[in-house]
Amino acid sequence: MRIIVLGADGYLGWPTALHLSAKGHDVIAVDNLVRRRWDRRCGTNSLVPITSMERRIARWTELSGRPIAWHKLDLCDADAVTALVEETSPDAVVHFAEQRSAPYSMISRGHAVETQVNNVVGTLNLLFAIRDHAPNCHLIKLGTMGEYGTPNIDIEEGFIEITHNGRSDRLPFPKVPGSMYHLSKVHDSHNIHFTCRIWGLRATDLNQGVVYGAQTKETTLHRDLATRFDYDGIWGTVLNRFCAQAAIGLPLTVHGKGGQTRGFLDIRDTVACIELAALNPPAAGEFRVFNQFTEQFSILDLAARVQEARAAHGLETDIVHQPNPRVELDTHYYNAKHQHLLDLGLHPHALADTLIEDVIHVVQRHKSRVRPHTLAATVDWRTGGDVYHAPAATSVAPREIVGEVTARVPVGAAAAR
Amino acid sequence: MRIIVLGADGYLGWPTALHLSAKGHDVIAVDNLVRRRWDRRCGTNSLVPITSMERRIARWTELSGRPIAWHKLDLCDADAVTALVEETSPDAVVHFAEQRSAPYSMISRGHAVETQVNNVVGTLNLLFAIRDHAPNCHLIKLGTMGEYGTPNIDIEEGFIEITHNGRSDRLPFPKVPGSMYHLSKVHDSHNIHFTCRIWGLRATDLNQGVVYGAQTKETTLHRDLATRFDYDGIWGTVLNRFCAQAAIGLPLTVHGKGGQTRGFLDIRDTVACIELAALNPPAAGEFRVFNQFTEQFSILDLAARVQEARAAHGLETDIVHQPNPRVELDTHYYNAKHQHLLDLGLHPHALADTLIEDVIHVVQRHKSRVRPHTLAATVDWRTGGDVYHAPAATSVAPREIVGEVTARVPVGAAAAR
Repeated sequence: MRIIVLGADGYLGWPTALHLSAKGHDVIAVDNLVRRRWDRRCGTNSLVPITSMERRIARWTELSGRPIAWHKLDLCDADAVTALVEETSPDAVVHFAEQRSAPYSMISRGHAVETQVNNVVGTLNLLFAIRDHAPNCHLIKLGTMGEYGTPNIDIEEGFIEITHNGRSDRLPFPKVPGSMYHLSKVHDSHNIHFTCRIWGLRATDLNQGVVYGAQTKETTLHRDLATRFDYDGIWGTVLNRFCAQAAIGLPLTVHGKGGQTRGFLDIRDTVACIELAALNPPAAGEFRVFNQFTEQFSILDLAARVQEARAAHGLETDIVHQPNPRVELDTHYYNAKHQHLLDLGLHPHALADTLIEDVIHVVQRHKSRVRPHTLAATVDWRTGGDVYHAPAATSVAPREIVGEVTARVPVGAAAAR
Repeated sequence: MRIIVLGADGYLGWPTALHLSAKGHDVIAVDNLVRRRWDRRCGTNSLVPITSMERRIARWTELSGRPIAWHKLDLCDADAVTALVEETSPDAVVHFAEQRSAPYSMISRGHAVETQVNNVVGTLNLLFAIRDHAPNCHLIKLGTMGEYGTPNIDIEEGFIEITHNGRSDRLPFPKVPGSMYHLSKVHDSHNIHFTCRIWGLRATDLNQGVVYGAQTKETTLHRDLATRFDYDGIWGTVLNRFCAQAAIGLPLTVHGKGGQTRGFLDIRDTVACIELAALNPPAAGEFRVFNQFTEQFSILDLAARVQEARAAHGLETDIVHQPNPRVELDTHYYNAKHQHLLDLGLHPHALADTLIEDVIHVVQRHKSRVRPHTLAATVDWRTGGDVYHAPAATSVAPREIVGEVTARVPVGAAAAR
């Protein structure tokens, strides 16, 4: 298949591009590289060094013998995305190309507007380009489990059969998203659903859980192929942040009681899910929603897992509770369905201590790059916040490293290729 | 109360500003006048001539003795809206200031993006301004019944109690909107709901039906106080368009079977509903949704009503069915609740033949201003469309007028003041 990967410079976009290429698809990688600029603007960095798109792709082609086309392009540039779709006639478009940080979206009015405009307009431009130039193309759009919030009923995959006053209908599952970012994904979902209904487009909305992990089979082949690893309070996902805190000897910071429960998945499952969706397209006019995660954990569960993984090596790790900068329930019912991708053949990686150790090891290897002041959650949902500013040289220092990971457990997949 | 009316130059915004002023509130009228520019861009016009905001307001103050403050301001200018809210400390903000035409939003990609960005960003700017400078202010936001679509279950007012797998929750009513414009209102609703939850704002989302009618008690006091009357295929609402067609002797054009059923209300009820909402604010943190309409009709019902009203005067009116340029069901279940505003004391005006005759009379008075080529629905939901271009002088002419309305039935409210 010919597949465009939008957002191919990102944490998940890059491994997805590699995975699809490894599986024999013709991959067209597209990104505007804004995430690298946002890092500079926010004072954040990828813990794992990443090379330029040109160098990454050249290295991949050298090692795999497979080319990846590369276009630097902004989805908000309607003419550019229209030309891209017209010229490449893709079978599928994988769309990761959005501002994807909830804290970033909550920094200020400007960040909220930037997030919603960037995400909604980019997706609208893409939908019109597909309608006009590749109407049979399958749009695979990354949504988020955070669109649903934490309702007191089971979360279905996108739609729910509602019986009310003696009549029934299958309707979109009600959404109670928790940030300006999550709202932008809800807006996208409504827009995409509409274009499937009126233009007969075919789309899969992947409501993804929180992704953890540092590498996939392909990214481990060479250091030039590494994907970014965010550990900070703006861009880092929670388990990755915990691993970073543990590796440099800081306590794990849990916001509120830690009963916040979410769906999680391994980065290796993300790339597998994308290919499964691509290989099994929906019918014309169908708007299909998959909940893309493999296990549910509470935040406190995750912290305890990291603590236990380290205790197995005689290393002590503290867990500290801090006031929650977000407005969210910290104890609630949560039961989200995630059957569709299993039905298509997904074999999930369960979160194991070995994975946690592997991530900690990755952090350990690059610990000199950790900027400890960026681990703090500085954006408050009520009042906003700020990006990170470099501390004065002596004012903040990482706590002394209390231990080392004494044995590296290799990731199974990394050695397999 | 001190009340800002955003979009005060519009069909409903202007009569609302007058009504609130007449009721003794301190009104601050705000508009960017873009609707007048959109008219020029679309080749459309208000059937009833409207004067400048300055002249209207001066006339109102002369007749009523009451001032209305006037600010020309664009909600997408964040600094301007922030300063407005900070400087005026309103008790309530009535927000009509959005692109409100479904066909306009479906003309092209550019029109879709313009609609969603204008509406979503304007509302976001307003929400942040309220949070920072008037957190107790009551936001009264105009939504639309079109957010719900036509589900096969009863439509509740904003929220629905769902029991699923033995558990229950009260969740936002699922939305299946029917145009890029209606989608923008769904996006707004989600954004506003969120800010009520996290910032404790208080908001009323008025999901309004299709409004008909040409005048209110206040607008009839002087011709300088008239509000705009849209009859064309882009801006005109359906009953107003039928009345325009009837008045100039054209057949009433029904799209598809005409079984499309919607909620409708009289313009005089719109202004009453707004004041009722303002006088009865929700609690801090409450996001309240009212379905603002008074009667349900199918499109064919409405056409028949116009036909009958004219038959009473011996005038024949044809009804013709045309292919539907929209993608929508033309026969479907429809039962939408609309109890909350009645509970607050609304005394609805039922659609009577007298109202239809009154509207036809208004059209009749200004029939030389009708541009017949703008009555056609030229925007197709599947392929887009174009604005109106003036026809060559001899190529299109209005059909001969087949009759006159022989008696004018005065609108009760117009004579009361």
